[in-house]
Amino acid sequence: MTSEPVRIALGPKHSDLLRQAITGSGATLSDLDRARALVWDGGPAGFPRRLPAGIEWVQLFSAGVEEWFETDVFDAHPDVVFTSAAGAFARSVAEHALALLLAGVRHLPEHIRASSWRQTEFFPRIGTLRGATVAVVGAGGIGRELIELLAPLGARVIAVNRSGRAIDHPTVLETIPAERLSEVWPRTDHVVVAAPATAATRQLIGKDELSQLRPHSWVINIARGRLIDTDALVDALRDGTIGGAGLDVTDPEPLPDGHPLWDLPNAIVTPHDSNPPQLRTVAFAERVADNVARFVAGRELNARIDLAAGY
Amino acid sequence: MTSEPVRIALGPKHSDLLRQAITGSGATLSDLDRARALVWDGGPAGFPRRLPAGIEWVQLFSAGVEEWFETDVFDAHPDVVFTSAAGAFARSVAEHALALLLAGVRHLPEHIRASSWRQTEFFPRIGTLRGATVAVVGAGGIGRELIELLAPLGARVIAVNRSGRAIDHPTVLETIPAERLSEVWPRTDHVVVAAPATAATRQLIGKDELSQLRPHSWVINIARGRLIDTDALVDALRDGTIGGAGLDVTDPEPLPDGHPLWDLPNAIVTPHDSNPPQLRTVAFAERVADNVARFVAGRELNARIDLAAGY
Repeated sequence: MTSEPVRIALGPKHSDLLRQAITGSGATLSDLDRARALVWDGGPAGFPRRLPAGIEWVQLFSAGVEEWFETDVFDAHPDVVFTSAAGAFARSVAEHALALLLAGVRHLPEHIRASSWRQTEFFPRIGTLRGATVAVVGAGGIGRELIELLAPLGARVIAVNRSGRAIDHPTVLETIPAERLSEVWPRTDHVVVAAPATAATRQLIGKDELSQLRPHSWVINIARGRLIDTDALVDALRDGTIGGAGLDVTDPEPLPDGHPLWDLPNAIVTPHDSNPPQLRTVAFAERVADNVARFVAGRELNARIDLAAGY
Repeated sequence: MTSEPVRIALGPKHSDLLRQAITGSGATLSDLDRARALVWDGGPAGFPRRLPAGIEWVQLFSAGVEEWFETDVFDAHPDVVFTSAAGAFARSVAEHALALLLAGVRHLPEHIRASSWRQTEFFPRIGTLRGATVAVVGAGGIGRELIELLAPLGARVIAVNRSGRAIDHPTVLETIPAERLSEVWPRTDHVVVAAPATAATRQLIGKDELSQLRPHSWVINIARGRLIDTDALVDALRDGTIGGAGLDVTDPEPLPDGHPLWDLPNAIVTPHDSNPPQLRTVAFAERVADNVARFVAGRELNARIDLAAGY
């Protein structure tokens, strides 16, 4: 007995990458009228006003879906399951965080600016993540990916999440709930900020927190700029309170020309490019392939949008 | 019945760390004349011209032993087993190689030199190791450590070693014997050189090899400078044949002031500091402890120097 193929529609664009993600995961491409699901590689603007009755599931492209909530798409289709791309882009951001942290620990900014050998001067400055403690503040999707990257380097992680529910991983020394965050600073070598930006996380790291870190500590921010008090950070970088900062996000953002962070030798600023469009496309195709395979097998889909929670 | 203690001499320095490594592993410290083995924490210059007849084993400090082959030390002591520190420093060097590779893939040199946001300009340049192929040329101790670090990043490795004996690791696509090295260049995104410096590996990478790589390829050298033809590399970096180079070793070394590599925006030079003294000392003591325990137990020693192979 051959079961009927699972038909999935694709729109508004029809990239080869997404075609392959769908057909390589056990489904066939179809027009919308005969499909059971729709993979939507675009925003709400061109989305069909009424989906055919046969559509059971719609996969959306973005990780954050605030924009979609502002339309009536979800309300108009109460029987359709919508999934976002939440979590799909975590790997690229975690890789970026690791690149910034390793660049800091190995003093790459100074090396890159050097124009002579100066080996004996550099020697004592070279650090290692081996045996170092890294606080991962906000151990959601990105934080968990980062923990996987830190593990083979021999780093030890203090994870911080909202609930304090323990992250079961040999590299994680301890999981601390957000309300006990103040315990982290004197105990860690480095900090990676990966927490969502909410009212509760505004300026999570300021003068007091920085003063409890160490002269070799690097602070990495790949979350949102306003989680760190920029002026306090500039002071800490200038007076050597901490070793350096790797920032993919800033406050203000974009960072204006002439801002002191551009010139500090121990700051690396990347313009919120940890997850650029061309990598996003590949990551989305991976998510589509995974969710199509789940749909074909009748398993639970990844990142189902919770209409009550609003994400 | 108490067996006689295994006497091991230490020189030319006598650090507490190495004393403890020896005595903590079941041997006793001794002067050279009564010893069965010598742990030599120095170079060939001050090495004894004639070892006492009782010496069966000498542990040398460095991982690469070309310098020792240029003396007559090995020839003068055909009955003595010499071990190098090959592999002992692998972790720190592999971490450095990863720092350089990630810095390249994420365009950190350009970011570090930037003084304005320029997000749309940076976006298309950001690469990822996810799904990228990395050729690890010389899959010995450092290469194997590096494979462990690359695995969670989702890179795929083509390993090259002398024998071509397959490295059994899910991240390793294929293990290629050194004599088929020429097959690697058109198939890889990035190259990490981790091979020993021997007559056979001199200028392993020159104009022809570089021309088969791609405009986004980074070449990392953490082995020995002369494995790469420096002039050809400078040309390839200048004309965009490859994306960049991360060099912890150079030819000539030290790299002289005014050398074009200092000013190229896509070259990162670190002054052979991937394994600085403070990290080296700890790693060497770990190796000494391990090899002393093996010697005491009559087991095979780690990193025995192969006089025929030249390392």
